[in-house]
Amino acid sequence: MRQTELFTKTKKEIPADEVSRNAQLLLRGGYIYKEMAGVYAWLPLGIRVINKIKKIVAEEMEAIGSQEIIMTALQNKEIWEKTGRWDDEKVDIWFKTMLKNGSEVGLGWSHEEPIIEMMKSYITSYQDLPKYVHQFQTKFRNEVRAKSGVMRGREFVMKDMYSFCVSEEAHMDFYNKSTQAYLQVYKRLGLGDITYVTSASGGAFTDNFSHEFQTLCEEGEDVIYVHKKDNYAVNEEIFNEKTLLKHSANKDDFEMKKSAEVGNIFTFGTEKCEQMGLSFTDAEGKKQPVFLGSYGVGVTRLVGVLAEIFSDNKGIIWPKSVAPFQIHLLVLGTNDETKKKAEALYQEMIAENIEVLFDDRDGIAPGEKFADADLLGMPVRVVISDRSLEKGGIEIKNRNEQESKVISVDELMKILKHA
Amino acid sequence: MRQTELFTKTKKEIPADEVSRNAQLLLRGGYIYKEMAGVYAWLPLGIRVINKIKKIVAEEMEAIGSQEIIMTALQNKEIWEKTGRWDDEKVDIWFKTMLKNGSEVGLGWSHEEPIIEMMKSYITSYQDLPKYVHQFQTKFRNEVRAKSGVMRGREFVMKDMYSFCVSEEAHMDFYNKSTQAYLQVYKRLGLGDITYVTSASGGAFTDNFSHEFQTLCEEGEDVIYVHKKDNYAVNEEIFNEKTLLKHSANKDDFEMKKSAEVGNIFTFGTEKCEQMGLSFTDAEGKKQPVFLGSYGVGVTRLVGVLAEIFSDNKGIIWPKSVAPFQIHLLVLGTNDETKKKAEALYQEMIAENIEVLFDDRDGIAPGEKFADADLLGMPVRVVISDRSLEKGGIEIKNRNEQESKVISVDELMKILKHA
Repeated sequence: MRQTELFTKTKKEIPADEVSRNAQLLLRGGYIYKEMAGVYAWLPLGIRVINKIKKIVAEEMEAIGSQEIIMTALQNKEIWEKTGRWDDEKVDIWFKTMLKNGSEVGLGWSHEEPIIEMMKSYITSYQDLPKYVHQFQTKFRNEVRAKSGVMRGREFVMKDMYSFCVSEEAHMDFYNKSTQAYLQVYKRLGLGDITYVTSASGGAFTDNFSHEFQTLCEEGEDVIYVHKKDNYAVNEEIFNEKTLLKHSANKDDFEMKKSAEVGNIFTFGTEKCEQMGLSFTDAEGKKQPVFLGSYGVGVTRLVGVLAEIFSDNKGIIWPKSVAPFQIHLLVLGTNDETKKKAEALYQEMIAENIEVLFDDRDGIAPGEKFADADLLGMPVRVVISDRSLEKGGIEIKNRNEQESKVISVDELMKILKHA
Repeated sequence: MRQTELFTKTKKEIPADEVSRNAQLLLRGGYIYKEMAGVYAWLPLGIRVINKIKKIVAEEMEAIGSQEIIMTALQNKEIWEKTGRWDDEKVDIWFKTMLKNGSEVGLGWSHEEPIIEMMKSYITSYQDLPKYVHQFQTKFRNEVRAKSGVMRGREFVMKDMYSFCVSEEAHMDFYNKSTQAYLQVYKRLGLGDITYVTSASGGAFTDNFSHEFQTLCEEGEDVIYVHKKDNYAVNEEIFNEKTLLKHSANKDDFEMKKSAEVGNIFTFGTEKCEQMGLSFTDAEGKKQPVFLGSYGVGVTRLVGVLAEIFSDNKGIIWPKSVAPFQIHLLVLGTNDETKKKAEALYQEMIAENIEVLFDDRDGIAPGEKFADADLLGMPVRVVISDRSLEKGGIEIKNRNEQESKVISVDELMKILKHA
């Protein structure tokens, strides 16, 4: 894509009320636009990052047998009343509104209740189980504070998956598979080394069967205790004598770290399906309640976490797997021959299906182009200039390194084709 | 995909309050699930149809230079007050709700106001123009009645595009291009022959520069007058003496037809940008208001229109361009050899990237499998059975034809590979 065609521009100023680092970088780069606190529009570069994350998540969910659906934002009051979760005292982040006929409706903040209701149409026998479905959907949560940029939105995209099983045993099998699938997602996003599965205290029932995925992150809202030698961490809420005893560890073996929750998985058991009347007939013809699991990944939140972690004082440093473009091609200088060579190189990259953003802007100082490239954060910067051509080619530099080197165009294309 | 893996099932019964043909067919086929009137979840087969329509629309919009963004559902009251469109008297389909701090917010039913506000960050000079952006986004409209299935939703997916130009002349150039792009979309969807561009009376300003795309459809909510000989139609609202005079035609030259609005394009002029303060500096350094256009296609509505038009009393007959799968492969009979051959054929199709739904269900009567294939509506049905193998191969039938014929597996694969 040509930068002259991109309607966004990089910015020096950002909204005064924007205190989070991720939103500051994403706003300055033109990845997002702020509608109000916790509510962001996604611009062309931002959509490319979201789509790459979605693709990775979708592949891993489909690999464990899940099917994609899209449920609705508008929520039926009657359905949520069945489990008591319509009550604002129990769930304090509902947005509620009204149909013309006066019926109250809510905006979906999670989808256990409606998916159970829906599954009553499709699950009747043990032969219909197990079933796994997921969606990428916009959730609405009426947060009191939304100061963490895209890491905590009032409107955000989430991948939520739901599992329906005949028994706890069958459930645990899928629960373990989904844990591995989640870890695979974080690995592919470049977060593998700093993401921990932690046991979460999710209320009475889910005591033993809920986990969070916590990524080390200074701007995160959570705290975990990371074991100094062994590769595991403990959630703040259960960092107590009992847990230490279980791990045969001492308090001093752990280091307190700030973290961001990048995923969570819940065992709901049979309670919700019992409340809502979702059951199946087993092989003996007996009615049994369905065993429910729920699995969430905040897709837009992950963009924020990545921007927090992979950035320096100049801008973002996207991991290759989610970068909107792999190459940022800059043309510098006013020599016609240089411009012609840059254009030819751009065309060659397009022909080779290389994802390239081409800074073809005229009348922009080299320093400004470099600063924009650093801010936008594509993994590889390729500069073609009067000077680089004199030296025999183009200048290539990885965003996460200081040193650049000059190589020939042929050599560059050879590297890119095999990347 | 294997039908045994699909969590949905075809149904004989549908919700009692569902009177529209499109929703009845889509519900029975397991394409959609009804959450409440005008609010439908999309299931795996339905998502495939939506994604194909989105791809066609995206390709045509990108071909005329538009860039994809995603704006937000939550809408800022202050922004809509600038043009007076926050007022429920003026716009009577708002859903409104409230943030925790008591601020009122709305749910986006269209996005002219927020996109103009956003563009104030990116448009300052004539050199920044023209700009075209589009999004595929969930819109919310608080309709009093929602009885037309997915053809009129309270929550639905729309492609909306906005154009920002320096002048009326530049605008009309893009407006004409977008008209052609829209016609191209309907052509690719199989609706080309029955879709008319009609001049619409869109209020005082837009009298001459707004058009609707109307598809002949018995279940449509609109009426158009189609010229009996020439290939054009006139919108009911302007079917009057003045229009007839313009066309040198008589009333009797036209036939009244029911139709569904499948798209609309509006010229907004400079008024909205003036109200909201979006201007650019021209080449002489003078401030000028930006010229706005707005272009909508109801993506989920189109699924409904297609289901209305391309169906018979047995079910849907998808055009190839939007069918969830091109082939519905049915295995009949209990012979092990038949099952083995069916499995091999399915694997071969998958290896060739042929989109195939494989009815591999055991213990289902042939009549039921045929009925399901007719209901689901894939363009080509391929049956492999003890009998077909005796006759030397598989039985192939197009959904829109009565006659089937038996051909060899080799011949089938040859046809499919070149389709």
